Amino acid sequence: MEPFMYFNPTKLLFGKGQINRLTKEIKSYGNKVLLVYGGGSVKRNGVYDEVTTLLKQAEIDWVELSGVEPNPRLTTVQKGIALCKEHEVDFVLAVGGGSVIDCTKAIVVGAKTNEAVWDIICRKVRATDGLPYGSIVTIAGTGAELSLNSVITNWEQQDKRAWVSSFSRAKFAIVDPTYTKTVPKRQTVYGVVDTMSHILEHYFHQAENTPIQDQFLESVLRTVIDVTPKLLTDLENETYRETIAYASTIALSDQLNMGFIGDWGTHHIDHALSAFYDIPHGGGMAILFPNWMRYVLNDDTVHRFKQLAIQVLGIEFENKTDQAIAEAGINQLETIWTEWGAPKYLSDYDISTEAIDKIADKTIETVLVCGNYYPLSKEDIVTILEKSM
Amino acid sequence: MEPFMYFNPTKLLFGKGQINRLTKEIKSYGNKVLLVYGGGSVKRNGVYDEVTTLLKQAEIDWVELSGVEPNPRLTTVQKGIALCKEHEVDFVLAVGGGSVIDCTKAIVVGAKTNEAVWDIICRKVRATDGLPYGSIVTIAGTGAELSLNSVITNWEQQDKRAWVSSFSRAKFAIVDPTYTKTVPKRQTVYGVVDTMSHILEHYFHQAENTPIQDQFLESVLRTVIDVTPKLLTDLENETYRETIAYASTIALSDQLNMGFIGDWGTHHIDHALSAFYDIPHGGGMAILFPNWMRYVLNDDTVHRFKQLAIQVLGIEFENKTDQAIAEAGINQLETIWTEWGAPKYLSDYDISTEAIDKIADKTIETVLVCGNYYPLSKEDIVTILEKSM
Repeated sequence: MEPFMYFNPTKLLFGKGQINRLTKEIKSYGNKVLLVYGGGSVKRNGVYDEVTTLLKQAEIDWVELSGVEPNPRLTTVQKGIALCKEHEVDFVLAVGGGSVIDCTKAIVVGAKTNEAVWDIICRKVRATDGLPYGSIVTIAGTGAELSLNSVITNWEQQDKRAWVSSFSRAKFAIVDPTYTKTVPKRQTVYGVVDTMSHILEHYFHQAENTPIQDQFLESVLRTVIDVTPKLLTDLENETYRETIAYASTIALSDQLNMGFIGDWGTHHIDHALSAFYDIPHGGGMAILFPNWMRYVLNDDTVHRFKQLAIQVLGIEFENKTDQAIAEAGINQLETIWTEWGAPKYLSDYDISTEAIDKIADKTIETVLVCGNYYPLSKEDIVTILEKSM
Repeated sequence: MEPFMYFNPTKLLFGKGQINRLTKEIKSYGNKVLLVYGGGSVKRNGVYDEVTTLLKQAEIDWVELSGVEPNPRLTTVQKGIALCKEHEVDFVLAVGGGSVIDCTKAIVVGAKTNEAVWDIICRKVRATDGLPYGSIVTIAGTGAELSLNSVITNWEQQDKRAWVSSFSRAKFAIVDPTYTKTVPKRQTVYGVVDTMSHILEHYFHQAENTPIQDQFLESVLRTVIDVTPKLLTDLENETYRETIAYASTIALSDQLNMGFIGDWGTHHIDHALSAFYDIPHGGGMAILFPNWMRYVLNDDTVHRFKQLAIQVLGIEFENKTDQAIAEAGINQLETIWTEWGAPKYLSDYDISTEAIDKIADKTIETVLVCGNYYPLSKEDIVTILEKSM
C-alpha cells in the first residue's frame, strides 16, 4: 500500500431511532438552523415532520431551503448561502440523499466567505472556513454523508464539477435505514449501483500489498449482489435496507481505500455527461462502468478483472483463459445490473452519438487526470462513450 | 445490527516516512512534550534518535518518562503525571507499543485533575479533561493507537483494570511498519495473537444481520493466518510487516465492530490472570482463547464456530456434523498458534492450579459482565482455567 492519512471525524449515528440524538448534537454548535431538503419526499415519508417537531421541542429556530435538485445546481447553493447570511444561521442540517448533502457542502463553505462559491468549486479560490453541518440520510447510495466530496452543476454554463474541501466535513451523520423504506424501486436500484460503483472505483488501484483491503471491497460487493434482488421484491424489508444503507455509508468513509487511490475515471465521464443531460448518476454508472472495464481490460490489467470475476461475480474459472474469466465477469456485472432494472445504453436516455465529442471534451477539461488506475485520453473516452451508445 | 455510534477522530498516519509529519502535528497542540517510552528498544532501533532529532529541529522542548513496563504499572503512570505537572507539559508523545500508549492514556487524564488516577481507572471518579497526545507505534499487536481502551496494573494491590475515557483519544497515530522490523520473533507472535484475539472477540457477538462486518473480520483473520508464517521466517520483510501492522491498527479502530459488541470475556480473564502473573498478553490469549471456545461451544453457538472454521480456518466440511466442523476449527486455531511458537498451557508460565480460584475471583470482581456473547460465571471461568492448565 501507499503511505496514507485516514482522518474522518464525522460522528456516524447509524440505526433505527438515532434521530433522537439530533437536537443534542445540533445544540453543541448553534441554535439557528438552515434546513435543506429536496423535492418533498421527506414530507411524504414523515421525516420532515419528525425533524421539525424535534427542533421545536428543543427550541431551535430554523429557516428552510427546499427543492434541491437530484443533480444540485449552483443557483440553489447560492440561495442557501444567501439564507445563511440573511438569517445568521449557525448550523446547516441536510435531510435527504446525496444531492441535498452535496448542496449543503457547498452552502457551508460559501456562507463563510465573500468569494463566489463557484470559484471555490472550480478551485480558483480556496475555502477558508465552513459553517458546521450535519446530515440525516433518507436515500442510500451516494455515501455523501461520510465523504468530503461534492458535485455541483452550473446548468447555465453546462458545467458540473466534483470538488472537495476540508471545511465540508459533516459534524454528524444520522443514517436510519428505516427512512429509506419508502424509496421507490428505480431509485433504490440507482442507489445500489452508485454504491457498487464507488467500491469498484476503489477496487481498480495500482498499489501493491492490499490483501485485507481487497477482501473488504469484495465483501461489500458480494453482499450487495446477494441482498439487492431480495430487497427489490420486498422494498420495505428493514433488514435488507439496513445492509444496503450500511454498504452505502462505509463506501466513501475512506475506511475501504486505506493505502491506495481508486480509478474514478468513469465517475469523471458521468459528471461531464450529466452536465449536459440531467440523468441519474446511478443510471449513468450502470451504463458506463462495464464499458470502461472492457476498454481497460488488457494483458496488464487482466489479473484484477479475473480476481473480481472469481471472488465477487461467481465466475467458474476452470479450463478458461484469464481473458475469458475477466470478460465473463464484466458481462455478469452488466447482466446483474440490467436484471435489476438499470439501463444498459445511453440511448435509453435519448443521448445520441452527436453528443460524444462534447462530453469527452468536457471530461478532459474538468480534471487533471481522468483515471488513476488507467488514465484516459480524449480518444479513450470517445471510444468508451461509443460503446455505451 | 444494533444501532451504533462510530466516532474516531484520531488522525492515522500510516506508512513509511510518516514520521516527517510529527512535529507539524505536535505544534498545533503545544511546545512542551512528555516523551514516553519503554525499556529501550526505541533507542536500539533508532526511533528515539529520529524522534528527538525532529523535536530539536522544530525547537520543541521535552522531558522523558522511560521504562514503561510491558504491563504498565500505576506507579509509572503516577511518575508521568508528576512530570507533566512539574514541567507544565502541553503534549504527550508515546513511542512504543500498546503498553506505552496505555500508560500515556492514563497519564493524560491524570495530568488534568487533582483526583487520584487509580480512582479514575476504577471508575470511582470520572475524568473531566485530558492533555492532548499522539503515538508512534513500534510494535504491532495491541491496536492501542486507535482505541480509547487502556489497561493498567496496580502491582501493589495485585489488581489490573481495563478502563476507558473519552479524554484518552489520541490526536494522531503514526504507524510506520518499518519500525516493527526489529521486533523479535517471540514478540512478533504475541502481537499477531493479540490482533487475532481482538478480531475473534469481535466475531463472537449476538447481533443479527452483519454479513459485511462478518466478512471483514474473516478477511483480516485469513490474511493474518496467511502472512504470519511467511513473516516469521523473514522478520525484516517490509511487505509482511505492513500487512500485520495494518491488521493490528484497524482491529481496535471501531471500524470492524460497527453495530455489535464482541464477547471480550477471555480478555477479562487474561487481565485478571496477569494481575498476579506478569505474562505477555498475547501469550495468555493464545492459551485461553481456544479453551474459551471449547467451553462456550454448544447447540446454540455451533453455527458461529462452524462459520469461522469454514471461512477462516480452511476446515473441510463435507460429511461432517456441525459440531465436528466447529471442533476441528478450534483445534486448527490452537495448532496454528502453537506452531508459530505461542504457548498452549498456563503451566508453560509456571502457573499452577492453586491460582485458579483467585484468578476467577479477580475476573468476576473487576467487571460487571464477563462476556457479552456468552456471559461467564465464576464456575465457568474456573473450568476454562482448569482446561488451560
